[in-house]
Amino acid sequence: MQVIKNYIEQNKARFLDELFALLRFPSISADPKYKDDVLNTAEFVAEKLKEAGADQVEVCTTDGYPIVYGEKIIDSQLPTVLVYGHYDVQPPDPIELWHTPPFEPTLRDGKIYARGACDDKGQFYMHVKAFELMMQTGSLPCNIKFMIEGEEEVGSDNLGKFVAQNHERLKADVVLISDTSMLSMETPSLETGLRGLAYMEVEVQGPNRDLHSGVYGGAVANPATILCQMIASLHDENNHITIPGFYDNVAVLSDAERKALNEAPFDLEAYKEDLGIEDVWGEAGYSTIERTGIRPTLEVNGIWGGYTGPGAKTVLPAKANAKISMRLVPGQDWQRISDLFKAHFEKIAPKSVKVSVVAHHGGAPYVTPVDSVAFKAAHNAIEEAFGKEPVPTRGGGSIPIVALFEEELGIKTVLMGFGLDSDNLHSPNEKYDVFNYFKGIETIPLFYKNFAELSK
Amino acid sequence: MQVIKNYIEQNKARFLDELFALLRFPSISADPKYKDDVLNTAEFVAEKLKEAGADQVEVCTTDGYPIVYGEKIIDSQLPTVLVYGHYDVQPPDPIELWHTPPFEPTLRDGKIYARGACDDKGQFYMHVKAFELMMQTGSLPCNIKFMIEGEEEVGSDNLGKFVAQNHERLKADVVLISDTSMLSMETPSLETGLRGLAYMEVEVQGPNRDLHSGVYGGAVANPATILCQMIASLHDENNHITIPGFYDNVAVLSDAERKALNEAPFDLEAYKEDLGIEDVWGEAGYSTIERTGIRPTLEVNGIWGGYTGPGAKTVLPAKANAKISMRLVPGQDWQRISDLFKAHFEKIAPKSVKVSVVAHHGGAPYVTPVDSVAFKAAHNAIEEAFGKEPVPTRGGGSIPIVALFEEELGIKTVLMGFGLDSDNLHSPNEKYDVFNYFKGIETIPLFYKNFAELSK
Repeated sequence: MQVIKNYIEQNKARFLDELFALLRFPSISADPKYKDDVLNTAEFVAEKLKEAGADQVEVCTTDGYPIVYGEKIIDSQLPTVLVYGHYDVQPPDPIELWHTPPFEPTLRDGKIYARGACDDKGQFYMHVKAFELMMQTGSLPCNIKFMIEGEEEVGSDNLGKFVAQNHERLKADVVLISDTSMLSMETPSLETGLRGLAYMEVEVQGPNRDLHSGVYGGAVANPATILCQMIASLHDENNHITIPGFYDNVAVLSDAERKALNEAPFDLEAYKEDLGIEDVWGEAGYSTIERTGIRPTLEVNGIWGGYTGPGAKTVLPAKANAKISMRLVPGQDWQRISDLFKAHFEKIAPKSVKVSVVAHHGGAPYVTPVDSVAFKAAHNAIEEAFGKEPVPTRGGGSIPIVALFEEELGIKTVLMGFGLDSDNLHSPNEKYDVFNYFKGIETIPLFYKNFAELSK
Repeated sequence: MQVIKNYIEQNKARFLDELFALLRFPSISADPKYKDDVLNTAEFVAEKLKEAGADQVEVCTTDGYPIVYGEKIIDSQLPTVLVYGHYDVQPPDPIELWHTPPFEPTLRDGKIYARGACDDKGQFYMHVKAFELMMQTGSLPCNIKFMIEGEEEVGSDNLGKFVAQNHERLKADVVLISDTSMLSMETPSLETGLRGLAYMEVEVQGPNRDLHSGVYGGAVANPATILCQMIASLHDENNHITIPGFYDNVAVLSDAERKALNEAPFDLEAYKEDLGIEDVWGEAGYSTIERTGIRPTLEVNGIWGGYTGPGAKTVLPAKANAKISMRLVPGQDWQRISDLFKAHFEKIAPKSVKVSVVAHHGGAPYVTPVDSVAFKAAHNAIEEAFGKEPVPTRGGGSIPIVALFEEELGIKTVLMGFGLDSDNLHSPNEKYDVFNYFKGIETIPLFYKNFAELSK
């Protein structure tokens, strides 16, 4: 333990500098105009893996952005950990709300502000540095493989193919991912599950051109109005989702499981105050923790149509669009849910408009087996580093590829995240605490130690 | 009549050239970045009024864009016509749908394509050229005053003050406006009324920042979803507007009046085909002509919130906005309706969001007295120029200042428009037929002749 702490202490400044260099790449996978930046980020990651001591480092081309691979096989008889992360980031919009530029990482009050600071550059880079630490201090106790992709924020379209084509290369005993959060540094936690995702885009087409709202208003269906009506109809008065079949197969937790979940420390008043809201919202009959953990949801991620500039334009728009995504829980199949959504949305469209629905991407929900060697290794590593047993939680977010790893590689995943819910992921002013960054680098080698020992 | 036709024939090319020059100014009053262009347009209009023979020409400053004034008083004992028009135009968005640039007027198939071609540059400029014609041929039979403003498309905020401060200068017997349309050139028509307008902008604020839709989705009210629900609730299943008190005082037409209105030539199949829609939409119990003519409506003119770029972003947006306008009919007071909307929209907001509502602008509905000298003068002028009696119609659009003229100056307005509903007002590819432009210039002097004679 002291060896770990000493190494971190001696290399702190460099560990931060390198992360800052990584954060300066605007690796926005959703927007084609950043293509070169995304590609340059992959090269940078490969370089850093090599410097840390990885062999067989390769920037593996795909039909989309490349996957960076690297490994260190010290003994084929020892267990192997596959580290997954992603070097791409969400778009920074709305950019005007950032206090400092999203791709000029800034240190303020012990926090690193930058797009990707927590999701996931800051988190996956802890693994690169922990690996360096184990290499330099001669303490790597098992084999390690890195697979860092560049399309997580746009659905990991090409990862499935890569995994399918590289079974042998990716062979491992567990997948280790840091791309989730803890309750707090005072109340460390370990995620036991994640929600799945089905992301859709819809278009409602009314007349074949924008119309004058005086000349045609009241006689021709307004696609913005119709879209609002269709979206409104997707929740009932109890905020249940109305898509037929949506709740089929949703895993129902026992009263005891729900009770345990609700015992996690949670301060509703502080939660509301942090968000600046008068009241929470959600499905009747469930607590806030349950609503984000064990229940599926449907959210409008974006909506647009008609005139959105300054002043007034009396237009009846030709079309209106929305991005709508659903978070799924164990039992729900994301492809089936995508199909159900599409069929339902098309069915409820009135004859006066045309509707098209496209599925962007999706992923299955996941539950980690808490009795596995890897989960215990993570649990004990956190306990040792934080001096406190981690609270088991269910994450509301999605890492669709977790289910893919199980299906393709037959291995489970441990979700050892060090972020915070308040890190503004996908929001302006994303941040990652310097404390968490170093705490992660400190915890990870303990995981390897435990995993190697418990695997014996 | 032959004198008129000859003069037009001899000056056709120049009349078109001058209109094209006027159309080249991007006089978009809604967008501050076009400020200089709007001001330059006013100077151009003043210059052209002088050239046509007007006296006392002045670019009158206001707190917003200037009002261009000019007059020709030939005999204070003769009746006076006040011509109103506007030199500002709607924004050209969505600009990518224009086949030719909106401010490079283009002649195709006998049509002038440009923003403002019909609304209202092409139409008010007919009056400038008809005035020149009467001056040059010595046939001006009464006094004429021009008042051409630059803020019609943003609510004519400063016209009221100008009119109030210039009662003497604007003294006239009738206001003449060409800013509306005819059924077709084969079926000429004359509008007997216009709808009023109340234009609102709403903002629904949820959390104080954009959130990750996985971490918070399902537990925090999504302002885009809530906005959709609120907008959806503004119409009931019969497409009646649900704002309490909205229909109070709406003028109800007699069965005979409704029958007459529905006798206007109208081909529903051709209407649907022109718009590319399978079905019309609107308030139960009313025909399409009634829905746009005698019934009030509520339209979403624009809506936006969350991520609207390419690809997927799993955000729960902090806020969502919409521009919503209502067309009003005789009996409805636009300020009262604005207040009712605001009170209702604030009232239906759930506690989980904050709502703000701003009234952009509005205007009263108007009905023209069909037994007046001026209406008869217009009716007979159209009959003479087109060889056919005009059909009386009720326009769906709004020219809020018509009610203002009556209130401030005590005079009625004649709405002698030469546009077509298919002219794409407020839409991409706005056009005005060359035929209509010259037919207007031909009809206007006949109006003056009739008005002078009938006023005797």
